[in-house]
Amino acid sequence: MKMDKEWLIDQIEKLACFGKGQRGITRLAFTEADIKAQKYIMGLMDQAGLVVSRDQMGNIIGRLEGQDKTLPAVLTGSHLDTVPEGGKFDGVVGVVGGLAAIKQIQGMGSLRHTIELIVFIGEESSRFGFATLGSKAMAGLADTHAWSKGRDKNGITFPQVMSQHDLDIQEVGKAARSSEQIKAFVELHIEQGQLLEKAGNTIGIVKSIAAPTRLKITVEGVAAHSGSTPMAERHDALVSAAMIILAIQEIGLDQSGRGTVATVGNLTVHPGSINVVPGLVEMLVDVRGVNQESMIECLQDIKDAISTIAEQQDTVVAIAMISAEKPVEMHLEISELIEKSCISLGASYQMIHSGSGHDAMNMSRLVPTGMIFVPSKNGISHNPDEYTAYDDIMMGIDVLTETLYQLAK
Amino acid sequence: MKMDKEWLIDQIEKLACFGKGQRGITRLAFTEADIKAQKYIMGLMDQAGLVVSRDQMGNIIGRLEGQDKTLPAVLTGSHLDTVPEGGKFDGVVGVVGGLAAIKQIQGMGSLRHTIELIVFIGEESSRFGFATLGSKAMAGLADTHAWSKGRDKNGITFPQVMSQHDLDIQEVGKAARSSEQIKAFVELHIEQGQLLEKAGNTIGIVKSIAAPTRLKITVEGVAAHSGSTPMAERHDALVSAAMIILAIQEIGLDQSGRGTVATVGNLTVHPGSINVVPGLVEMLVDVRGVNQESMIECLQDIKDAISTIAEQQDTVVAIAMISAEKPVEMHLEISELIEKSCISLGASYQMIHSGSGHDAMNMSRLVPTGMIFVPSKNGISHNPDEYTAYDDIMMGIDVLTETLYQLAK
Repeated sequence: MKMDKEWLIDQIEKLACFGKGQRGITRLAFTEADIKAQKYIMGLMDQAGLVVSRDQMGNIIGRLEGQDKTLPAVLTGSHLDTVPEGGKFDGVVGVVGGLAAIKQIQGMGSLRHTIELIVFIGEESSRFGFATLGSKAMAGLADTHAWSKGRDKNGITFPQVMSQHDLDIQEVGKAARSSEQIKAFVELHIEQGQLLEKAGNTIGIVKSIAAPTRLKITVEGVAAHSGSTPMAERHDALVSAAMIILAIQEIGLDQSGRGTVATVGNLTVHPGSINVVPGLVEMLVDVRGVNQESMIECLQDIKDAISTIAEQQDTVVAIAMISAEKPVEMHLEISELIEKSCISLGASYQMIHSGSGHDAMNMSRLVPTGMIFVPSKNGISHNPDEYTAYDDIMMGIDVLTETLYQLAK
Repeated sequence: MKMDKEWLIDQIEKLACFGKGQRGITRLAFTEADIKAQKYIMGLMDQAGLVVSRDQMGNIIGRLEGQDKTLPAVLTGSHLDTVPEGGKFDGVVGVVGGLAAIKQIQGMGSLRHTIELIVFIGEESSRFGFATLGSKAMAGLADTHAWSKGRDKNGITFPQVMSQHDLDIQEVGKAARSSEQIKAFVELHIEQGQLLEKAGNTIGIVKSIAAPTRLKITVEGVAAHSGSTPMAERHDALVSAAMIILAIQEIGLDQSGRGTVATVGNLTVHPGSINVVPGLVEMLVDVRGVNQESMIECLQDIKDAISTIAEQQDTVVAIAMISAEKPVEMHLEISELIEKSCISLGASYQMIHSGSGHDAMNMSRLVPTGMIFVPSKNGISHNPDEYTAYDDIMMGIDVLTETLYQLAK
């Protein structure tokens, strides 16, 4: 059965209602909006005849049983959680698209291998500071010790949030799958960059995924009265922080020829009052690249710049490494299968590097993994204006369908 | 009766318990901690034989009745609310010190004039963004239209907060006093600067109070994925904000010879996630000075710098004026009375400009007003490390006592 574009638009719009706010969609991991979106998709999976279950991490699994139960399953899927004030397509395209592909395959006759559609929990790091929680758990990469210390903005710990959803952080290890059970993982996702659009191609076959290194920078000055403290006698933590932001921007620009980017994504001022010279500033920094040497150089330059600023401004600056991951290569055979699907469907395509992290990054440690990108309008993502043309998503679904079929037939 | 230093320390320490947190004291206007502190002081006033009442704004008034009820009252007082993570002395010294002065005067025989001790509500702008609410209301300067739109961090409006405390914003006009009822206002306060300490003087006689002009600056960039958006294609609102912070610091330093200071006291990033390039930043800016020309120049320079940065960075920047007040001169006769008190008590003193705003600023529009400063250790204020030597406070109380006595006898 060929997928209907109306159905696709309808499902993406329906999911966009969960967590819709004044600006974009806020559907953080394990919040009510996230769980409602999961339940909605579970309903669709059930209607499509899939066997639906939830693992110990909270990942949703929908199985289309194959004829030979001894053969390893072919997996596809993505995530439903978003960043604060995010868009409609990030993650959702891979979940709805995965379901659409399975529905198309159902019309293509019986398969030897089981196909599974996975909704990974907590792909975005926005709520607890840790990214791709669900796929880490499935790939046996869960760091429950570190995660246990995670708290959201309201101070609720990660284990507390899990137990609110009848999950136990002690049981997360049981969500790990064996590589023998799985033949391959293929994820459909929006590009979140502008390369496809600029080249005029519909499909990106991901070659490698950039790895984020994340820092928490704490600048300590001296809180003081904003009226009676002379300019020359201040130790203004926000002034030092501003210098650090510009230094990080400069260093990112220096490395950008080698594909590395550096971002200060959040900054908090203490005490944060109009009549007080800032005494303490906390910043979250995200550095990513596919070139390991460039990443190392970038991080070293950031540390050097911070030391210089701290000394010059007489403010104490502490740097904590929150996470450091290595760039990941996609599996050559899966990429070749995707390429063949593109050719047979007449889709324009190119090989591409992914600047953003994905669940596929973790799954690739477990099993042969590939990723299919569809274009992002103006490269915009993590933003209410995020958009991908539905015809491009339709082509992405067809390429995914053909690839999954070849793997599972 | 001569005031006992133990009593003074005890009262200041007791008040420091209301709103005590991990870092300093947080006793924002109309919060539970603030109201508890007020009630504690009302108890002390009552014990001292004062007639205690509350006006329509929530200011506390304690009257020591004079012999001649037709004569105008002599007022003293200060505030009990603090900034977030503030110190023990700001405001409290003028309230406890005012009570101590009245207790000393009670031992000096009967007076013709009534003396009133005022605890002004909401001196700090920290909760609603508006400063010196109580003294504005008493001086007939309340802008209830603007205040009605004020909200705290939890979104509770100022009128809602007032009604929680059985106050009605429509009735605030009734808190305005007539200048005929009041002879003078004298406020004892910590300097919150380092001039007295550097000069080795115990008492500062305030000549003028700097006026704050407050701006809200909104920088609009484009929220984007922090991994897949190339450095050169970003419109990072936080990078533009960092440039603005450094420009404001530079401009403040340029004007500092003329006593003007400029501070970015708070900054909020939207969406504020480690994996999103900041799309929107809001900043609160406080500019103060006693030299009107320098203030105007400073504000103009800030606006020019912002225009340049906005254009250069291709980010939209909006500037909103939250408040703009003119510098205020203290009353010459009251200052001379304070000086005579210093001489008769053998206190070392100097004339001084106040960089910080005070309730005396508003009261001076209504009646002859003076201010007595005592030294701040290292000039630190609005900080848990705020400290004034108790012997200096004792001398401040004695100067206040003598000044009030001369006015009320």
